[in-house]
Amino acid sequence: METPEQVRERIRSGGWRRPTAGLAPGYAQANLVVVPSSYAYHFLLFCQRNPKPCPVLDVTDPGDPVPRFAAPGADLRTDVPRYRVYRDGELSEEVDDLRSLWREDLVAFLLGCSFTFEAALLRAGVPVRHLECGCNVPMYVTNRPCRPSGPLQGPLVVSMRPVPAHLVPRVFQVCSRYPLAHGAPVHVGEPQHLGIRDLDRPDYGDPVPVRAGEVPVFWACGVTPQAVAQQARIPFMLTHSPGHMLVTDLRDEELALE
Amino acid sequence: METPEQVRERIRSGGWRRPTAGLAPGYAQANLVVVPSSYAYHFLLFCQRNPKPCPVLDVTDPGDPVPRFAAPGADLRTDVPRYRVYRDGELSEEVDDLRSLWREDLVAFLLGCSFTFEAALLRAGVPVRHLECGCNVPMYVTNRPCRPSGPLQGPLVVSMRPVPAHLVPRVFQVCSRYPLAHGAPVHVGEPQHLGIRDLDRPDYGDPVPVRAGEVPVFWACGVTPQAVAQQARIPFMLTHSPGHMLVTDLRDEELALE
Repeated sequence: METPEQVRERIRSGGWRRPTAGLAPGYAQANLVVVPSSYAYHFLLFCQRNPKPCPVLDVTDPGDPVPRFAAPGADLRTDVPRYRVYRDGELSEEVDDLRSLWREDLVAFLLGCSFTFEAALLRAGVPVRHLECGCNVPMYVTNRPCRPSGPLQGPLVVSMRPVPAHLVPRVFQVCSRYPLAHGAPVHVGEPQHLGIRDLDRPDYGDPVPVRAGEVPVFWACGVTPQAVAQQARIPFMLTHSPGHMLVTDLRDEELALE
Repeated sequence: METPEQVRERIRSGGWRRPTAGLAPGYAQANLVVVPSSYAYHFLLFCQRNPKPCPVLDVTDPGDPVPRFAAPGADLRTDVPRYRVYRDGELSEEVDDLRSLWREDLVAFLLGCSFTFEAALLRAGVPVRHLECGCNVPMYVTNRPCRPSGPLQGPLVVSMRPVPAHLVPRVFQVCSRYPLAHGAPVHVGEPQHLGIRDLDRPDYGDPVPVRAGEVPVFWACGVTPQAVAQQARIPFMLTHSPGHMLVTDLRDEELALE
């Protein structure tokens, strides 16, 4: 089994440019959002005000590409297999590394990711549909506003996983332990309550079937802060590409409740 | 039973200048730290990096004296029964209100407080010694450094409550549910491990007896951020006076795990 350090080394040397799901099992993977330091306070405060979609694992000092808490041996410019570059809120390009784009005023945020609780659900015997289907989790823009912070505002985005009704209590038990990985679900059962009209038409990701005896369960989603930052037309922002996460040195268990 | 609003109204009108323990039971009380906006990012990041001593409940926008999330009807300049003013890190005076000291560049932080978990411990049948003794909780500076943020650095400060050994598991069960009120204890049993030489000589507060069959249990303490901000000699800082907290509209249960 590869360690996080070995995974990152492989990515850094160009030997892995695919999604990171399943790599270094037991270790937390993280969403990456990089903004100019002039936006860092508002972004950090947005995360504080919206901790379920935006659970902060680490924040770098301006210009420092090393996440000194979550992965002190990592380099955020090279250790993610694929990045996205946004200019004025628009996706401008996808790149393999950030070496030529890095600036001294950039601050990186690592946010907990759903892989942590999905692994815990599987260990607890709760099936995860989009993993069975081999597709992306379906995500939906809701009618619930996030609490704004300066120029950052927008709706909560949620992910949905169908759960056999008798396993819903277990889902809450398992996920509540991981507030740094989106925590307990935000809603169970009624998509309309969140302003979602058609589960078959997600705003991001792929639709998955909800079978007889299952209820749709909704979690706050890490796409929320990216969507909000795009909407605010931050002049320059870097993120991971969907599914291409940073593998940290933190064990999933370190994202559990303290 | 008075509501939080009624308590604050009584304080605002000068009818209560004493500690707030026991007022509006069931509602969360909060530590107050106010700093100039030039220090707000470092302070917020310090809290993110040290969530056990610094659980953030609310952050105001610069100049706004209203904590719009935790108590939208409150005024932070008048609704705390006693305040402390620090200049260049030194306690300069205690005042009854902040009306003449408030500035347009001030940002207020409300941090969860131990009253929340002490009430939960009492409900769970765990005795709380300093409440029995009618004195202040003993607090100790430890040898554990906080994770620094810019100019803010310093050791973790802990509070100590003696717990009958057979009730230690219950303490963890109860307190783990309240990550926004310092969460689970950080240490059990060996003061030396934290660099504490003599339990009878706390750095803040009053000593309490540890009886036969009891073990000392240590929690991250909200004095930590104040001590750190003092040490950094922030030119201007306002806080509540010890024990004289803001009574918020949040129920203690809203500080529980999500």
